[in-house]
Amino acid sequence: MKNNDKLTTALDLPAVDPLPEDTQKYFDLCAEKLGLVPNVLYAHAFDIEKLNAFTGLYNEIMLAPSGLSKLDREMIAVVVSAENRCFYCLVAHGQAVRALSGDPVLGEMLVMNYRVAPLEPKQRAMLDFSLKMTKSSASIEEIDRQTLRDIGYSDRDIWDIANTAAFFNMTNRVASATQMEPNAEYHSQNR
Amino acid sequence: MKNNDKLTTALDLPAVDPLPEDTQKYFDLCAEKLGLVPNVLYAHAFDIEKLNAFTGLYNEIMLAPSGLSKLDREMIAVVVSAENRCFYCLVAHGQAVRALSGDPVLGEMLVMNYRVAPLEPKQRAMLDFSLKMTKSSASIEEIDRQTLRDIGYSDRDIWDIANTAAFFNMTNRVASATQMEPNAEYHSQNR
Amino acid sequence: MKNNDKLTTALDLPAVDPLPEDTQKYFDLCAEKLGLVPNVLYAHAFDIEKLNAFTGLYNEIMLAPSGLSKLDREMIAVVVSAENRCFYCLVAHGQAVRALSGDPVLGEMLVMNYRVAPLEPKQRAMLDFSLKMTKSSASIEEIDRQTLRDIGYSDRDIWDIANTAAFFNMTNRVASATQMEPNAEYHSQNR
Amino acid sequence: MKNNDKLTTALDLPAVDPLPEDTQKYFDLCAEKLGLVPNVLYAHAFDIEKLNAFTGLYNEIMLAPSGLSKLDREMIAVVVSAENRCFYCLVAHGQAVRALSGDPVLGEMLVMNYRVAPLEPKQRAMLDFSLKMTKSSASIEEIDRQTLRDIGYSDRDIWDIANTAAFFNMTNRVASATQMEPNAEYHSQNR
Amino acid sequence: MKNNDKLTTALDLPAVDPLPEDTQKYFDLCAEKLGLVPNVLYAHAFDIEKLNAFTGLYNEIMLAPSGLSKLDREMIAVVVSAENRCFYCLVAHGQAVRALSGDPVLGEMLVMNYRVAPLEPKQRAMLDFSLKMTKSSASIEEIDRQTLRDIGYSDRDIWDIANTAAFFNMTNRVASATQMEPNAEYHSQNR
Amino acid sequence: MKNNDKLTTALDLPAVDPLPEDTQKYFDLCAEKLGLVPNVLYAHAFDIEKLNAFTGLYNEIMLAPSGLSKLDREMIAVVVSAENRCFYCLVAHGQAVRALSGDPVLGEMLVMNYRVAPLEPKQRAMLDFSLKMTKSSASIEEIDRQTLRDIGYSDRDIWDIANTAAFFNMTNRVASATQMEPNAEYHSQNR
Repeated sequence: MKNNDKLTTALDLPAVDPLPEDTQKYFDLCAEKLGLVPNVLYAHAFDIEKLNAFTGLYNEIMLAPSGLSKLDREMIAVVVSAENRCFYCLVAHGQAVRALSGDPVLGEMLVMNYRVAPLEPKQRAMLDFSLKMTKSSASIEEIDRQTLRDIGYSDRDIWDIANTAAFFNMTNRVASATQMEPNAEYHSQNR
Repeated sequence: MKNNDKLTTALDLPAVDPLPEDTQKYFDLCAEKLGLVPNVLYAHAFDIEKLNAFTGLYNEIMLAPSGLSKLDREMIAVVVSAENRCFYCLVAHGQAVRALSGDPVLGEMLVMNYRVAPLEPKQRAMLDFSLKMTKSSASIEEIDRQTLRDIGYSDRDIWDIANTAAFFNMTNRVASATQMEPNAEYHSQNR
Repeated sequence: MKNNDKLTTALDLPAVDPLPEDTQKYFDLCAEKLGLVPNVLYAHAFDIEKLNAFTGLYNEIMLAPSGLSKLDREMIAVVVSAENRCFYCLVAHGQAVRALSGDPVLGEMLVMNYRVAPLEPKQRAMLDFSLKMTKSSASIEEIDRQTLRDIGYSDRDIWDIANTAAFFNMTNRVASATQMEPNAEYHSQNR
Repeated sequence: MKNNDKLTTALDLPAVDPLPEDTQKYFDLCAEKLGLVPNVLYAHAFDIEKLNAFTGLYNEIMLAPSGLSKLDREMIAVVVSAENRCFYCLVAHGQAVRALSGDPVLGEMLVMNYRVAPLEPKQRAMLDFSLKMTKSSASIEEIDRQTLRDIGYSDRDIWDIANTAAFFNMTNRVASATQMEPNAEYHSQNR
Repeated sequence: MKNNDKLTTALDLPAVDPLPEDTQKYFDLCAEKLGLVPNVLYAHAFDIEKLNAFTGLYNEIMLAPSGLSKLDREMIAVVVSAENRCFYCLVAHGQAVRALSGDPVLGEMLVMNYRVAPLEPKQRAMLDFSLKMTKSSASIEEIDRQTLRDIGYSDRDIWDIANTAAFFNMTNRVASATQMEPNAEYHSQNR
Repeated sequence: MKNNDKLTTALDLPAVDPLPEDTQKYFDLCAEKLGLVPNVLYAHAFDIEKLNAFTGLYNEIMLAPSGLSKLDREMIAVVVSAENRCFYCLVAHGQAVRALSGDPVLGEMLVMNYRVAPLEPKQRAMLDFSLKMTKSSASIEEIDRQTLRDIGYSDRDIWDIANTAAFFNMTNRVASATQMEPNAEYHSQNR
């Protein structure tokens, strides 16, 4: 199949074909490490500048060194996506939580109602802050940041929590607005 | 003043000092073209990788070629920020609307209640879509995209509307979660 | 394990032990047909009158002859439970949708955001009515019922849709209020 | 008038006629004790199995032995029905509160805004829990149950509060979805 | 009882005592015509200027010549007060609807859920506009006014509808914020 | 221009022409003291009785002696109007806050998100109460009034806070329902 035969959103924006060499290498690396090329990458690949800008921020948020573990960040992704009811992100990041935690029930709890999950208080505070940012960011005040500091987060950690929660408030909306379709492989993995 | 004396959020994350040469040049360019260095750049400058990832996406969304004019994109920024009641973004992008439109009342209308603004139907549809994405993105369906197509937007334009509206749903939340303070100069400009 | 060692909610209300003969037979029948005894039955079994009253209505709603198929009823269960974010019911009835439809992705779509599911218009109308009942039942008027009639439902079907959607608005609330825990077996089934 | 001449909802589902002997006896008993046969019974009487399943659960919830008084249960019914703005249930159970309490103003307070009623703290806690279950059941956590225990409720009482509040979240929705009409006699009683 | 012994709100603001002659005459007139002096008048009577300003606007809104009948205006009062769940106004104006319409069930329907009331389309449109003004006034646009014109209201009528609905959005909030207590006599009248 | 050539709302209700002598004097006084005649006065001037009733209450609320300063009252006006997103009132009273406080940034903060404003705790409590009255007046209870007393407000002050917040919940709705247009002069003043 050619790249431009594959549409992963409801918009008629096929990937450039062939992909530039660097992009193709990046996609091949994804396929090798993840077993698939996430559809969100195909969705952006109609314009390589846009793809690179998106992956640049994505990688900085999700993969760069941080006081938050990769699982922490994936948990934020799922809780934010659950509030926004984003199908793409719940499927993709729900799978990531199952994979990173080795706990398929935890993944389901975060997708359905994170309040039932048996979390450490520190993780729960991180997710409560992320949810408040999602539902009513304008009501966040110093007391909310101080609650995070009091339970052990640094100001740098708070930056990372805030930017991760905010990032998925962006991607959830792009995915829902364009009806982005997640890779079918996620559904059955790590169950 | 040294860069690291200037905190533009409630988090204790001073800019690296001195800034790397490329970053300093970019800030100098902002100062020259805008008359100020937007505080959002100082807020990210504690980590130059994060700054670059943010500006990479920002510039792609707001400045890259698009079927949407720069004013269109700033109008989306203000309407999304109004719904989210983000002080930083309303101040900064409200000024941008006043400057680009030459219509200070239009800027105020978008900040306060865009429904009172005398907009072209095409712009109104763009802003209605952006608001729906902001308030209830999960309820967007094909009919919403088709409404945009019917009034004259291409699928590529819809991508750009969606990504612009989504981007400010991210930045609004970072700004509110960290209490980012806008540059004081914006308030009196283009009134 | 004795029955009264098993608590399936956060309330200290163990099942009567031993169970009455009829109840034990019913539980054994569940185990045989479903491969498990649903925890909701243990939750009620501290009082056999309450258990019987609950199962009496449950069976009438979900199993009695109806113009709605069993899958239709399970789809209503999942969409209502998704709106109410009920962990127990999403797990149990999400599995039922996967099993009855043979379509694991459909189950996930209904759990996460039913609007992305490729449904027949008649099913979609049924679920839209169920969601409106869940979110704002007082705003239902004749036009909503007529919409169902126009797409092919009889008045008897409308009764069944209404009572199924209403029933899960009850059970969702009991499950969430008591922190009812779904059987672990559901999670990996029919993926 | 024959039974099947009497429609008490907007659906064309007349009662079976004649009613089975047991059903007729039950209706006669209602007429004798209450002075009327509640229309909700006629609404279900198109299918005697459904009528029996409904009355089985209704009687278990509202009439079975419990740590909650009958007035307590009727108060929950009214507060839940007020939140859901269910005309049928507010009329019928508002009358029950007036009758059981001998306090017509209390009935009106619960219908209109229970927060203005001069309640015992224990009753107020019961109604606050019922309202939270009605508005946002997924946000109920152990602290909510513990609040009830701390003010004197047993775990069994909490089960009964939860099931009563949940039951009216079901019946409110059936009544509103079918436009069930309350018996006219209720309006003027116990004023 | 002296005037200043009577507190009709939770604030310690007794009426001036004795009342000025004109005020006393007005209260006597109320007592003669209504059979009671509405508690809202006592609530304001700690400051006769405030009382006069309030009654001045009240009388202009509710009693002045208008294309809306007095019953129309009382119906708006009840529907707005129902949305705001204002105990004082629902009791007082619910009684007024019962008295003016001679239809006690209509009064209850408007208190509980006006959508179930069998209203003329013109009245229904008036109440729908009043409700939209109450819930989301910023979303009212020309199409909403045109809907009223199309069903037979003049621009002057629209002014009166808007001002009546707005007035009760004021009084509801004063009554709820001060816990204003309605005269007990209302409850049993016109049942 | 004649008075009746000037329409300041979307309703075709021109001012009486010529204005009665007293009204003309009042308008002239406004023009002299404020530099303009507020459009809200023209909007009412189709009926001088209505105009007088409105200004009677307006002046009592905003100008009469009170424990609240004029700036306090204007701050309430802006915070209430921001919640209701009323263009007219945000423009007019936002200007008043800028003028009375001499702090243009404060005016913008109250328009956009009052939580970011560096307020005295007493003022913040006043605004929090006003917002709660605006969003959910039925949930106000004695504890809310006591919070105001504890921070230094008298019962008379609470009356004034409540009536000011309630008044703008009225005027916001009239302005939005009629699309009242603010005087253009406000926009650039006190920036």
